[in-house]
Amino acid sequence: MTNSATNLRLKLPMACIILEVIIIILFGTLVKYDKETDAKQWHMEIANGSSNYENDFYYRYPSFQDVHVMIFIGFGFLMTFLQRYGFSSVGFNFLIAAFALQWATLMQGFVHGMHGGKIHIGIENMINADFCTGSVLISFGAVLGKTSPVQLLVMSVIEVTLFAINEFIVLSVLGAKDAGGSMTIHTFGAYFGLMVARVLYRPNLDKSKHKNCSVYHSDLFAMIGTIYLWMFWPSFNSAVTAHGDDQHRTAMNTYYSLAACTLATYGLSAVVAHDGKLDMVHIQNAALAGGVAVGTAGEMMLTPFGSMIVGFLAGTVSVLGFKFLSPILEKKLKIQDTCGVHNLHGMPGVLGAIVGAVTAALATKDVYGDGMADVFPDIHSGDVEASFQGVRQAISLAVTLGIALLGGLITGFILKLPIYGAPPDTICFEDGIYWELPGEEGSHEELTTVRTLDEAEKLNA
Amino acid sequence: MTNSATNLRLKLPMACIILEVIIIILFGTLVKYDKETDAKQWHMEIANGSSNYENDFYYRYPSFQDVHVMIFIGFGFLMTFLQRYGFSSVGFNFLIAAFALQWATLMQGFVHGMHGGKIHIGIENMINADFCTGSVLISFGAVLGKTSPVQLLVMSVIEVTLFAINEFIVLSVLGAKDAGGSMTIHTFGAYFGLMVARVLYRPNLDKSKHKNCSVYHSDLFAMIGTIYLWMFWPSFNSAVTAHGDDQHRTAMNTYYSLAACTLATYGLSAVVAHDGKLDMVHIQNAALAGGVAVGTAGEMMLTPFGSMIVGFLAGTVSVLGFKFLSPILEKKLKIQDTCGVHNLHGMPGVLGAIVGAVTAALATKDVYGDGMADVFPDIHSGDVEASFQGVRQAISLAVTLGIALLGGLITGFILKLPIYGAPPDTICFEDGIYWELPGEEGSHEELTTVRTLDEAEKLNA
Amino acid sequence: MTNSATNLRLKLPMACIILEVIIIILFGTLVKYDKETDAKQWHMEIANGSSNYENDFYYRYPSFQDVHVMIFIGFGFLMTFLQRYGFSSVGFNFLIAAFALQWATLMQGFVHGMHGGKIHIGIENMINADFCTGSVLISFGAVLGKTSPVQLLVMSVIEVTLFAINEFIVLSVLGAKDAGGSMTIHTFGAYFGLMVARVLYRPNLDKSKHKNCSVYHSDLFAMIGTIYLWMFWPSFNSAVTAHGDDQHRTAMNTYYSLAACTLATYGLSAVVAHDGKLDMVHIQNAALAGGVAVGTAGEMMLTPFGSMIVGFLAGTVSVLGFKFLSPILEKKLKIQDTCGVHNLHGMPGVLGAIVGAVTAALATKDVYGDGMADVFPDIHSGDVEASFQGVRQAISLAVTLGIALLGGLITGFILKLPIYGAPPDTICFEDGIYWELPGEEGSHEELTTVRTLDEAEKLNA
Repeated sequence: MTNSATNLRLKLPMACIILEVIIIILFGTLVKYDKETDAKQWHMEIANGSSNYENDFYYRYPSFQDVHVMIFIGFGFLMTFLQRYGFSSVGFNFLIAAFALQWATLMQGFVHGMHGGKIHIGIENMINADFCTGSVLISFGAVLGKTSPVQLLVMSVIEVTLFAINEFIVLSVLGAKDAGGSMTIHTFGAYFGLMVARVLYRPNLDKSKHKNCSVYHSDLFAMIGTIYLWMFWPSFNSAVTAHGDDQHRTAMNTYYSLAACTLATYGLSAVVAHDGKLDMVHIQNAALAGGVAVGTAGEMMLTPFGSMIVGFLAGTVSVLGFKFLSPILEKKLKIQDTCGVHNLHGMPGVLGAIVGAVTAALATKDVYGDGMADVFPDIHSGDVEASFQGVRQAISLAVTLGIALLGGLITGFILKLPIYGAPPDTICFEDGIYWELPGEEGSHEELTTVRTLDEAEKLNA
Repeated sequence: MTNSATNLRLKLPMACIILEVIIIILFGTLVKYDKETDAKQWHMEIANGSSNYENDFYYRYPSFQDVHVMIFIGFGFLMTFLQRYGFSSVGFNFLIAAFALQWATLMQGFVHGMHGGKIHIGIENMINADFCTGSVLISFGAVLGKTSPVQLLVMSVIEVTLFAINEFIVLSVLGAKDAGGSMTIHTFGAYFGLMVARVLYRPNLDKSKHKNCSVYHSDLFAMIGTIYLWMFWPSFNSAVTAHGDDQHRTAMNTYYSLAACTLATYGLSAVVAHDGKLDMVHIQNAALAGGVAVGTAGEMMLTPFGSMIVGFLAGTVSVLGFKFLSPILEKKLKIQDTCGVHNLHGMPGVLGAIVGAVTAALATKDVYGDGMADVFPDIHSGDVEASFQGVRQAISLAVTLGIALLGGLITGFILKLPIYGAPPDTICFEDGIYWELPGEEGSHEELTTVRTLDEAEKLNA
Repeated sequence: MTNSATNLRLKLPMACIILEVIIIILFGTLVKYDKETDAKQWHMEIANGSSNYENDFYYRYPSFQDVHVMIFIGFGFLMTFLQRYGFSSVGFNFLIAAFALQWATLMQGFVHGMHGGKIHIGIENMINADFCTGSVLISFGAVLGKTSPVQLLVMSVIEVTLFAINEFIVLSVLGAKDAGGSMTIHTFGAYFGLMVARVLYRPNLDKSKHKNCSVYHSDLFAMIGTIYLWMFWPSFNSAVTAHGDDQHRTAMNTYYSLAACTLATYGLSAVVAHDGKLDMVHIQNAALAGGVAVGTAGEMMLTPFGSMIVGFLAGTVSVLGFKFLSPILEKKLKIQDTCGVHNLHGMPGVLGAIVGAVTAALATKDVYGDGMADVFPDIHSGDVEASFQGVRQAISLAVTLGIALLGGLITGFILKLPIYGAPPDTICFEDGIYWELPGEEGSHEELTTVRTLDEAEKLNA
């Protein structure tokens, strides 16, 4: 039953504890309350005429909690579709998200400007940390079932760092808008993860093929993830947009985009699936593409009409991707994309970036009025033309793709080192390798695991 | 394995895509941002002294998200109790809700008054669209397991339209109050659905009898739905009431009504169920009746005391309905009500309408003070007496019942046309007919399905 | 199949209905809307210059709903880990929570001061009632699987009453701070429940041993509970703190404490568990200890740095408790703690109380500024020194432990009376004794139950 290669008794504790100690030390030396969370400073604001009711907590925290649910329940359960990988899907998602949000607070704090050598934090930092975490979880989807938790933690360390750098370049240097993260979160996370999956390509993965599918109840658990992501996506896209009409409009655009996307998904799924029946893979994933695809343009004056067209296209592209593109990616490009993140986050993310660039280029004072100052401050101030804002958006997409692909490439090679306790090809998609499984079902299951572990050792020998 | 009658490769895509294209065209020509979601208009409000913090987004969106969870998780998972209908319960719920909320935006926009030929939308429209969707999902509960997704989409088209008309008559023409929709949502949805179920009566449904029940884990999935509906019902009833004390009071009344209802449900269930044991059907459904029954009076000065009495009665009526009335409905009236919506939405809805009429008739300036203007503007302005407001409420119940029953009757006959791919009597309550089922469990299951499909064809021949 | 001793046809209905009738009568005579929920009074506030947007509903209700989810989904599903006790875990959790929140409204109203002989209620009462309910559910965890619902209702009656008394002594008499309830909720609930479990010690419980464990899917259901508790704990700790920076800071401290706790939990679990594999029991429980342990100090200027240290310690203590202390508690102290509440709520609660005392003793005007008035009003007013506030906190812990242990002791003996239909030792952890089980799986299961019931009768004879 013991297998030294995948035994994590030392590796995982060392990774967890060393990383956490580093984080705690950095928080101790660098992180402070911002003026809305600090007792003294906030009461100085109060003394200057502010009201407790104006604390940003009340205008961001409900959105934050929705995003939080997406990160931990949404992503976590979406990946429970695999028949024997539910513990790992929810559990590793939990682990790397809990790590990544702390690390992201630091990395985003570093690059987004420190105040007197300190990172000042409040609710917006929590939302942004969750956003960055989302990107890591997208990459997790590409390598799901084929990686050890130690590999995932190492991946998170690097990806969070590069995410923060890319986000800084896109939003601060290039001045692009991307409130819902079509580029910075979805495109970045997807192509980073796909590149990692490419480098970690396993030619003998078909030895675990019988586990790389769902059972009836695992698909129902996955629907919990899907539905939560779908419902709270309006909060995701609007969580950090400007207050007032911006948040309101973004949430509404996303709501209608997702609804249209869902109809497209059901329609297309019945067309392409076997025998005219619906395919759970499409419903669980493609129905969400509408949220991804309005991540950039959602705060703009896209209109519900425009949002629905974008959502409809995203759902269509996503279902077709699952049906026709994923097999090609696997066979020709050797990218084994477990969850199909290319179809849910990759292509819809790129679509969203393009929609954002076009919508930005078409912005006029006549449509936005003084609201231009919130959505496109540089156009409002006269610094740039709308068309140039569109160019900025397009360049940002290219930069994001470049950093994601290069970063994923390097990360893939780092993760390829045989020191992280990765599973052998014969026992991928299997909880038993990293989790104590419950007795009843487990007794049968563990026997299987033992057997396949033995085989694995023989193969590796 | 192929069965042309229930194969949806053409029917479902056509329905989804045609409907979505119609919706998109109508949104393009008719729908605009309202003044709280439009960049230009909202910033004109700002210029006139408003604050971003006063945008209605902040005072409606948290309630909206709770309602949204009820619609997609609550209703969706509540119906997963059937052993082999989980994909369809969550999946068709998802599909028709995503459709209905778009269609409802249009239909409610049409009847509730357009501005310069346009429908102006914001957060309240999203809540109301979700409400209307809830009504459709209640009807879905009555026909669950016996209808194809195409039938459900057609039903949604008609029901949403009639819902909007009935809502307009009740709230705008008759001037009744019904914030939580005891009448407009629950009574309407239940009796509409029951009438559809009556017309679609299947004398040979007992051939699928062995599937029309739960298994252990399907009941646990259903409890996810129940608990979410229960928890967020205070948000449902208060989502569109007036700001301030009204929303606050409505949420609180609903909270206590549901708590009392739950005690009644457990008590009664143990009395009537086999061997003094609790029956999951009662817990999953009757414990929610308290939310339905304060849907009209919740915003009034019902007091927690009054709310608890109403909740206690609703739970009692609902359990007794499941035990004694449902079998009679099926045998004598030929209404096969899969989820027992008559017990959860029908009778408690009527009870709620009556409680609302009585509470309205007893309203006095002494109790409501200036708050009368929010709850009963016509009594406050002196246009009507409180007793007449009670009469309005009662008439509204009658109108709602009439439109629901007549609408359901017509809809039932439309759905009876043999063109929608409805399942044969032998394979109702079975996901395999419309969904690709996962291998492992599915392999066994699909064999069963093939066999029953063959039988079905023989029977139909 | 009938077993008179555990048949609840009379006992449960009597308990439910008598309790509910008493509650309704007391609500009718004693409970009134407060000034924020009463139409007349609120509109007098409006007339005096308040705005509807200042109604406390908008600043407490989103937190309330998160707490509500923790109580009904979080606690309910956390306990579904047992393979054949899912109906009871969710269902009895639902029943006793619905009862306890009503009873808590009354008991907390009594001791926290009535106004003119009446209890005035609004959103804060709802949150506090849910908090008190949480304490009862913690105790439920200690006796899970070994008690009848009638016993649980009786326990709730007593525990809620004592909770309210203890809370009054700690917060009002002693002037301690405990917004997130490290002492009043977690320490109280845990030690009360452990003492009840001690008195109800079953020497022959190993006859049900094979049911006192999980299966694959029951562990996944439990993770729903875990993740919801984890995500919404920031709302729990901040739900009743002062508005503005206090709520904001409390939520943020809790967020980082939990993240650090999660890393510690995963690390320690791999160290101590069999074969270097992760143990679901640790992940499901210990990862939450960080929320418990900042329940007192979360609103103070603990800093994210301090919160992370506390969270890290709490996770460590909790995992070690599961591994080493729980077996000792069972063997030496004869405490059969089904869910390990001592590890999740007991020790982390005490840790939280100590952290709170130390943090309070170190409070300085220099750090808190005018914010001192919100966090430590008595220090701000000069009534006490910071060090004395620390002493108050420490005394509060001692008082809480005393009342919990003594109360649990007495309650245990009351619950030991053989009149509540408690399950025999041979069929603990088994839904079939109180629930009608669904056919398919149930048919097999019910046979088992019959057999063990027969055995039980022989044993009891």
